Amino acid sequence: MNIAAGSLHDFCVRALLKVGVNETDAKTTADVLVTTDTWGTFTHGTKALRAYIRRLKGGGLKTNGHPHIVSEGPAFALVDGDSSLGMVSSVYAMRVAMEKARTAGVAFVGLRNNCHYGAAGYYAAMGIPENMIGFSMANDIPTVNAPGAKGAVMGSNPWGFAAPAGKEFPIMLDMATATVAGGKVYAAAALGKPIPAGWILDAEGDPSLDATLFSHAASLTALGGYKGFGFAFLIEILSAVLTGSSISKQVLSWSSSDASLPTGHGAAFIAINIASFLNVDFFKQRMDHLIAEIHATPRKPGVERLYVPGEIEFEHREKALKDGIDLPADVVANLKALSEEIDLPLPSASGDEPDLYSDADILPHRKNPNFRERD
Amino acid sequence: MNIAAGSLHDFCVRALLKVGVNETDAKTTADVLVTTDTWGTFTHGTKALRAYIRRLKGGGLKTNGHPHIVSEGPAFALVDGDSSLGMVSSVYAMRVAMEKARTAGVAFVGLRNNCHYGAAGYYAAMGIPENMIGFSMANDIPTVNAPGAKGAVMGSNPWGFAAPAGKEFPIMLDMATATVAGGKVYAAAALGKPIPAGWILDAEGDPSLDATLFSHAASLTALGGYKGFGFAFLIEILSAVLTGSSISKQVLSWSSSDASLPTGHGAAFIAINIASFLNVDFFKQRMDHLIAEIHATPRKPGVERLYVPGEIEFEHREKALKDGIDLPADVVANLKALSEEIDLPLPSASGDEPDLYSDADILPHRKNPNFRERD
Repeated sequence: MNIAAGSLHDFCVRALLKVGVNETDAKTTADVLVTTDTWGTFTHGTKALRAYIRRLKGGGLKTNGHPHIVSEGPAFALVDGDSSLGMVSSVYAMRVAMEKARTAGVAFVGLRNNCHYGAAGYYAAMGIPENMIGFSMANDIPTVNAPGAKGAVMGSNPWGFAAPAGKEFPIMLDMATATVAGGKVYAAAALGKPIPAGWILDAEGDPSLDATLFSHAASLTALGGYKGFGFAFLIEILSAVLTGSSISKQVLSWSSSDASLPTGHGAAFIAINIASFLNVDFFKQRMDHLIAEIHATPRKPGVERLYVPGEIEFEHREKALKDGIDLPADVVANLKALSEEIDLPLPSASGDEPDLYSDADILPHRKNPNFRERD
Repeated sequence: MNIAAGSLHDFCVRALLKVGVNETDAKTTADVLVTTDTWGTFTHGTKALRAYIRRLKGGGLKTNGHPHIVSEGPAFALVDGDSSLGMVSSVYAMRVAMEKARTAGVAFVGLRNNCHYGAAGYYAAMGIPENMIGFSMANDIPTVNAPGAKGAVMGSNPWGFAAPAGKEFPIMLDMATATVAGGKVYAAAALGKPIPAGWILDAEGDPSLDATLFSHAASLTALGGYKGFGFAFLIEILSAVLTGSSISKQVLSWSSSDASLPTGHGAAFIAINIASFLNVDFFKQRMDHLIAEIHATPRKPGVERLYVPGEIEFEHREKALKDGIDLPADVVANLKALSEEIDLPLPSASGDEPDLYSDADILPHRKNPNFRERD
């Protein structure tokens, strides 16, 4: 199904309004989810809205929670998300980090009482139009193996970072610390496809190619073994141990646990103000230089281009904004089911529905005046 | 060769004094290198002293440089290392970060005019006795491939982090963003051993098992492909683009380039003050809980223990301090060659040389009052 970004945004806002979320928070959530879909990161975009709304109805997510600062200092804050939608709490926390970084040079904001926050890269990318380098990270229920273990000991704990460039696209990375995100294994299972060797381990801790075992009888491998495990551990420390959030097995599943309960996820956000260190234009020239150097590297036969982190996502987005978003079948199925559950028609592919809520800022980095315009 | 940590420290200090380094900087450098050897991280310990001294003699490293703050704010600083030994500049920069984090909650310090800084984990671990979470990272000459490229585009850009625990060992990770550090490939080549599939790519970008091709005709694979490449890119941004250091191909080799030239490496350091967020004892209890949970996870047959990050290094250190450091042959060969070059006898294995300079703080995290004492 092909749908205009504005129409999809409008649907998300209306759906959230319908279950009692206020307009500001509904728009913020739609901004995050639709931007994620424009990047082609469909595992973490509007596909999840149905589960969030199930939780809003159940009470585990508050429809009108109030994320707020619990404690703060010159360059840090601890935010309580008040069991609001993860997008609402996380956007709030990243904004606090950016405000503090503007004067302090850098800021770290921890977030407790969060839920699933979607694509880690979104919050990192919020720094781009503000000429900041951004980071975000979050913990989750254990799905990832530690070397030598039977079963999961740690979440796939994602993180994202982003930094602006000049004429080139910004740099952005958004990754799970597992070899692959669990969503890719679920997707393979749903399609009846085998998965590559090295993605999962069965209940005995041995390699398996059977995606259907995940997650009840299989765990994800950590990226590169002890390195990915260590990285996930770091994210657990910063997003959960340090913030007073639920740790590892204490976290509840955002998609499958009792919808009346808060999940207890934690997260952390870092903003670095480039102007504190270097003239911003000079920084961007240096970024462009590095990116151009990589683009000019000799390629293996058959490789048309070398991509830097985020380039695929930003190109996907440009096409999606121009030609509409090609939503995969699993996303469409979730949106259709949601449409029926809350009795709200899905917009038609042609986009002839009025887009009352499509004026929101779905792509914050477009504000970057130096952002590359492609022909 | 087995050698007492104090005797090895003493040798390093004397060697550096002999080429004109002042006593404070010589001790600092010895602290870093000997601690690294006690961890069993022999690729990044005293093995490198010979190359550093070659550069001190050549003038590319200043014997008495003065690392200093170029610009600063509440939570950030930019430090110019003044082409001092990488250990001297990096310890200075991390101390600045910790001082600022004590009041600001977090601090980020960028370092330019650095050289090879050895083990990333050391600077991160400096935070442990101060009840801080520490990070360090650095760029290096390109040795790592980007997916689809022929040849290297990015350094193996290492990073380290550390966080204190209560009864358990602190958590520490020190890793290259390549699948393996280049030092491991060199070590295999020196021993005439083949390397596992997946470590390197030949000049055409195809997989190779021939360690001798590295680095003139082979590049390291990035950890997990685009993920490790993206992570290395981030480190290049923070340690080099942002700090005004040499970027990627502009960096000179610390071990093989003209010793009269500065290498231009950059680095970055982050300190997070735990007490800004949470009662420190409560934080440590939460760390212990998470570590104990992982230790108690069922194991695969034949796996005796599950290790958390840093546990192997800290256990190795305890044994090394008690029984002496078992230096591998390649380290001994480098120390012997250095001993001849500067006419300074290596201490005997029995440790009967006077250890004039062995009183230094070679293991800063031992200050942690809650550090686990093993029987």
